[in-house]
Amino acid sequence: MTHSTSSRFFLSDGYAASECFPGDPLGEIARNVLRSRAATALQYGPRAGYRPLRELIAKWLESDGVPASVDDIAIVTGAKQGLDLVARAFTAPGDTLVGSEPTYMSGLRIFSNAALQMIPVTADGDGTKVDEIAHTFDRQAEAGAPLPRLIYEIPDFQNPTGTVLSEERREALVGIASRHGALILEDNPYRWLRYEAAPLKPLKSYDREGIVISVGSFAKILGPGLRVGWIHARGDWLSRILRYKADAGTSPLTQMIAHEFFSGPEALEHHLTRIRATLKPRRDQMLEALRKWFGGVATWTAPLGGYYVWVTLPVDVDGDRLAAKASEAGIDCYPGSLFFSDGRPRNLLRLSYSHETPERIECAVERLAEVMNATPETPPRSPAPR
Amino acid sequence: MTHSTSSRFFLSDGYAASECFPGDPLGEIARNVLRSRAATALQYGPRAGYRPLRELIAKWLESDGVPASVDDIAIVTGAKQGLDLVARAFTAPGDTLVGSEPTYMSGLRIFSNAALQMIPVTADGDGTKVDEIAHTFDRQAEAGAPLPRLIYEIPDFQNPTGTVLSEERREALVGIASRHGALILEDNPYRWLRYEAAPLKPLKSYDREGIVISVGSFAKILGPGLRVGWIHARGDWLSRILRYKADAGTSPLTQMIAHEFFSGPEALEHHLTRIRATLKPRRDQMLEALRKWFGGVATWTAPLGGYYVWVTLPVDVDGDRLAAKASEAGIDCYPGSLFFSDGRPRNLLRLSYSHETPERIECAVERLAEVMNATPETPPRSPAPR
Repeated sequence: MTHSTSSRFFLSDGYAASECFPGDPLGEIARNVLRSRAATALQYGPRAGYRPLRELIAKWLESDGVPASVDDIAIVTGAKQGLDLVARAFTAPGDTLVGSEPTYMSGLRIFSNAALQMIPVTADGDGTKVDEIAHTFDRQAEAGAPLPRLIYEIPDFQNPTGTVLSEERREALVGIASRHGALILEDNPYRWLRYEAAPLKPLKSYDREGIVISVGSFAKILGPGLRVGWIHARGDWLSRILRYKADAGTSPLTQMIAHEFFSGPEALEHHLTRIRATLKPRRDQMLEALRKWFGGVATWTAPLGGYYVWVTLPVDVDGDRLAAKASEAGIDCYPGSLFFSDGRPRNLLRLSYSHETPERIECAVERLAEVMNATPETPPRSPAPR
Repeated sequence: MTHSTSSRFFLSDGYAASECFPGDPLGEIARNVLRSRAATALQYGPRAGYRPLRELIAKWLESDGVPASVDDIAIVTGAKQGLDLVARAFTAPGDTLVGSEPTYMSGLRIFSNAALQMIPVTADGDGTKVDEIAHTFDRQAEAGAPLPRLIYEIPDFQNPTGTVLSEERREALVGIASRHGALILEDNPYRWLRYEAAPLKPLKSYDREGIVISVGSFAKILGPGLRVGWIHARGDWLSRILRYKADAGTSPLTQMIAHEFFSGPEALEHHLTRIRATLKPRRDQMLEALRKWFGGVATWTAPLGGYYVWVTLPVDVDGDRLAAKASEAGIDCYPGSLFFSDGRPRNLLRLSYSHETPERIECAVERLAEVMNATPETPPRSPAPR
């Protein structure tokens, strides 16, 4: 098999599929916004965000089964800023938070920057083992230790495992938070990138007391380069969160562009259809290539949506070493160690299928298998029968 | 005199002059960028920023007398984010910083959010009294108290006073920081908005040891709505600062727009000429209106650049109360208390002349005098003879 060697294979960061970027329509929109509304687009905007965009998001959330008022939604400069603000607004240095690991590496860095200590629990095919979350609270209470202030959860197509938190566990998790006076930080950038099966209700839809703070983003549904996300939280929490938003408000220009693009009827669904149609074959190809080149040797998750496949390598393969070797061979991917707060090397890899075409994904996975097999520290392996 | 009563008079926030927003050219640029380079503009960008923009800024700084390498410049999502990142990267909760008050209110909030304690010194017509900064270090050292980690300084057209730090004090300030192992955070968004007299060298130009961290912004030279600023610091400091940049990089789209707009020869100088030509008459009108309506009653600063006039009211006039009354009468301005870390009410006001036309500035100041004279808690005053 011959491969294009013109560039690196990019299976590392959660980059969006460039093919889905609506450059031409956004270009027209940007021109119109700047021509006719420069005084708004280029000026400082309200700290809570551009109101029409907040209204649009409230409408989307309502359609998604989450009661939402515009007053409970604020725009942030990307979902990561949302995590950072929530961490700072509701914790003090030295506090603990709890959530399953592996988990989003930037989340871990944000919590660590806020001097928080992560208490990790484990997950299975149904997502975070919420009974372990409950035990964590009980254990802390018994030990007379402060309870975690936050529960961090990515319920849909978790990063890095691609897992969906089960319905039963969603309800249970909100109950646990309620019983212990904790807040849930629901990080949900991939929710609308579902390629099959029916969606489960967001955590926020189980929330009767305002203890769930949800973070969403335009990164995966339009383009990361706009740096526009949102936080959905009880109004008084939102005020508290916004006190830490030190960037003088998210760019009105990029907010107005996002709003205009999605303001037509069914515009979100229409664009999501395009994105899903692009990403599903990539996921399929990634899974097929893994079967072909890693079958019988490694195991992996089969996500129903999102960007990532989580690969468990043979126990004697060090993910850090393999990722380093793969990088030398032109394949970028992330070792599993990045997704654990202890940073220990493990026999795990995250592969992102969002940014490469199916053809190139096939090449990259084959080459990755070659790298693994050629790495002298691990015994040579044969691929499974094709 | 009859006034337009169609809208409020906006003398509060440091809004840019909308008349100077180049909406049409930026619209064309945005369209071209999105059409031809969507894969870059809409994707995640490098954390340090869009390299051509960093190169451009390095060139500007060189022209401004500051040796600058592209590796020492990072893009931030507005200067405020720069302050926030520097505060977090170089201080721990409970640390002190030192700087003159009154000072930038958002700076004070950022420092307070980082749990820093501000040790204020005073200023005069030549800016921060740097001998008081030196005394602060000596006093802390004598008391066995930890020394301030940061010196916060806005050397050009200080916010809120409009003052310029004298040449002698610039050099002295860098020497003080050097002697005490402190860093200087040079916050300089207004530097290029000088309406008369020759510029003094930036603090960074006196820096031989990499102890000055400078923050600049496109907010005042192009448009706040782009949310693009920069940090100029020694490479190793910059790496440390960027560890706290949790927003996944500043928007590549807005960076590319800013870069394209300023990429032509003399583009910066050309646009600055336009901005200065718009703002100087506003400053002049503000000073003239103050002479007319507050002459003999109040005193004020006469800034050589920037956005603000700092008004000292009669001692028995409470700035907070006056600003509240003014707001009821449709004039937005900020009471002096906002610019002090202790928040105590004072007989001070900050008036911004950047956003209103000269005509409306004249109306607003007249009305402000009416409000002051009508406020029952203060004795009626007559304007100075016209």
